[in-house]
Amino acid sequence: MTGATPAIPPAPSPAPVIAVDAMGGDNAPEEIVKGAVRAVREHSVRLVLVGKLPELTSLLTKEEARGEIPVVHADDALAMHEGALASWRRPRSSVAVACRLIRRGDATALVSAGSTGGVVATSTVRLRTQPSVLRPALAVALPTRPVPTVLLDAGANADAKPEMLVQFAHLGAAYAHTAHGVADPRVAMLTIGSEPGKGNKLARKTAELLSATSTGSAGQSRLDFRGNIEGHDLLSGEVDVVVTDGFTGNVALKSVEGAVGFAFDAVRGALGSSALSRAGTLLQRKALRELHGRFDSETYGGAVLLGLNGTAVIAHGDSRARGIERACLLAHELAAGRIVDQVRRRLGGVTRASGWLHRRAGAEGHGPA
Amino acid sequence: MTGATPAIPPAPSPAPVIAVDAMGGDNAPEEIVKGAVRAVREHSVRLVLVGKLPELTSLLTKEEARGEIPVVHADDALAMHEGALASWRRPRSSVAVACRLIRRGDATALVSAGSTGGVVATSTVRLRTQPSVLRPALAVALPTRPVPTVLLDAGANADAKPEMLVQFAHLGAAYAHTAHGVADPRVAMLTIGSEPGKGNKLARKTAELLSATSTGSAGQSRLDFRGNIEGHDLLSGEVDVVVTDGFTGNVALKSVEGAVGFAFDAVRGALGSSALSRAGTLLQRKALRELHGRFDSETYGGAVLLGLNGTAVIAHGDSRARGIERACLLAHELAAGRIVDQVRRRLGGVTRASGWLHRRAGAEGHGPA
Repeated sequence: MTGATPAIPPAPSPAPVIAVDAMGGDNAPEEIVKGAVRAVREHSVRLVLVGKLPELTSLLTKEEARGEIPVVHADDALAMHEGALASWRRPRSSVAVACRLIRRGDATALVSAGSTGGVVATSTVRLRTQPSVLRPALAVALPTRPVPTVLLDAGANADAKPEMLVQFAHLGAAYAHTAHGVADPRVAMLTIGSEPGKGNKLARKTAELLSATSTGSAGQSRLDFRGNIEGHDLLSGEVDVVVTDGFTGNVALKSVEGAVGFAFDAVRGALGSSALSRAGTLLQRKALRELHGRFDSETYGGAVLLGLNGTAVIAHGDSRARGIERACLLAHELAAGRIVDQVRRRLGGVTRASGWLHRRAGAEGHGPA
Repeated sequence: MTGATPAIPPAPSPAPVIAVDAMGGDNAPEEIVKGAVRAVREHSVRLVLVGKLPELTSLLTKEEARGEIPVVHADDALAMHEGALASWRRPRSSVAVACRLIRRGDATALVSAGSTGGVVATSTVRLRTQPSVLRPALAVALPTRPVPTVLLDAGANADAKPEMLVQFAHLGAAYAHTAHGVADPRVAMLTIGSEPGKGNKLARKTAELLSATSTGSAGQSRLDFRGNIEGHDLLSGEVDVVVTDGFTGNVALKSVEGAVGFAFDAVRGALGSSALSRAGTLLQRKALRELHGRFDSETYGGAVLLGLNGTAVIAHGDSRARGIERACLLAHELAAGRIVDQVRRRLGGVTRASGWLHRRAGAEGHGPA
């Protein structure tokens, strides 16, 4: 651990509480309850289930877990097709109630498999951004080795500004530090062409700001900025954090997911195309199963909305018990590692650095008048 | 074929001549000459080789093809690391001389395996954009089935405007029509979220313009605009043309390439991980080899710069003879199909339509004052 990210004192308080939206997702509430029970039993995570009380009580009884996990009642739920407007339309949704638990201090993070748009909007409105955070960002862990690479923003802000992207770098570094144990995360910016000065206006200006931040003086958080990377290298595992705007990040993430799925389908098709190769496949079943697990989104817990007064982990909409269990564990790790405090410490410094940069850029004729 | 893309009369003139930059690429000039010889012998493509005369003459002699392919001398060549500035610095490069042949009417298209930045800049400066084309765009064919999907812009314009993207849709449609024989290409826009109104400002405005173009009246080229697609669906083959800005397109393309490569490596790793599965692999060698061929960039010929007074096909820098052969064939198909004329016909209509759209958008308060 470096001086830039102060050592976290061992938590004196008991484990943080995670509020789980039991009503969000294609397989809610059954699989959500099953996953929550597993997270409690196998990983000793502290949870509260939020949703329709009678239904959840009966499901907990079925799992022989009644009394093991508290339930907080919520009348309403976001539908899977609901987007940003849901945050206003449904003040009593299970996600809104989970946010209320966080605001009251009864929970530290939330888990939901509801629609990404709805959960992002509801959490942003109800948890509010942390002081000095311009915008929250959605972070995903890519299945790289030996350590996952954090890509953000994966879609929370379709139109972003360079100053936001610099903050996203810090949010991502806090994530890599907390969830993946990386002491001094290496940060790169996603663009076209690896040489400096390549990319669109947003990327060029962001790279300039990030380069200055990497040589930051004492009193401001520095970043280990490694320069540009291209789409080719997203899965190379060469850096710990990749920063980009929410439009590019979402397109890149979905392109990667689509291409990996396409390649596996093609391999399956090729391997199943003759009796001989089918025989070969039987011999390889175990190896392929392991590989599939590595790419299974359920292995990684879900996307994380960072920069709010509380952390929201958004599991895939089609998550089953195992995906929910992983999401609860990820939320627990981030909450126990006090990621919100880390972001506050990092961005306190960045705000000052960014003001200094603006003045300097203005003096050189690049910045606003 | 529809009324929008007028039937091409059978060419009364002999086959078009393709100027091949013999000096560009990691394997120049040996593999370029070999590929050119194959294109001439196996596909009856008419070629001119451009580069250092003595070297090329001796290579042609070695291939027993002296006299079969004319050679035009060029003193200089672009280096692989040279970008946009090369177009000014090297007026006697083989790419610049190939452009001169096109301007003089001695050739119709060029093929180069030189650096994309250098070839794009040199061709743009020397061939000039076609009348009414705002910017040229780089198009690539994705390995979808049954017909490749054309993605553009793949990187020529990092910062683009909605009006350019509408033109790119027409350039892509002309490509799909000419090279892939699609009578009425289905066009989609790459964005985040498939519902209308999703995306960043550029994507939202572009979708609005494209929707209006798809209902265009007689006298203007209409487009079969199918709405938004996401990164997931780039390889689904559901549309014939995907339009986006050069930054997003380049990131998406490289993310797809990187992810497919990563998945194949992972499969290879998994299949080779035990003696049993290695035995299985032997049984499947043929199926995997076929699959690899499908993803081999050499199968597709290369990226195509559209919208200039002449077509540039840019093969991968590491192309060998087979890649150059494919690139020559692609250049031949585009030139024989008179893609430059098709673009002129399509965009003549669009210029008028676009003016109409601007006025209407202005009246509704969306457009420029």
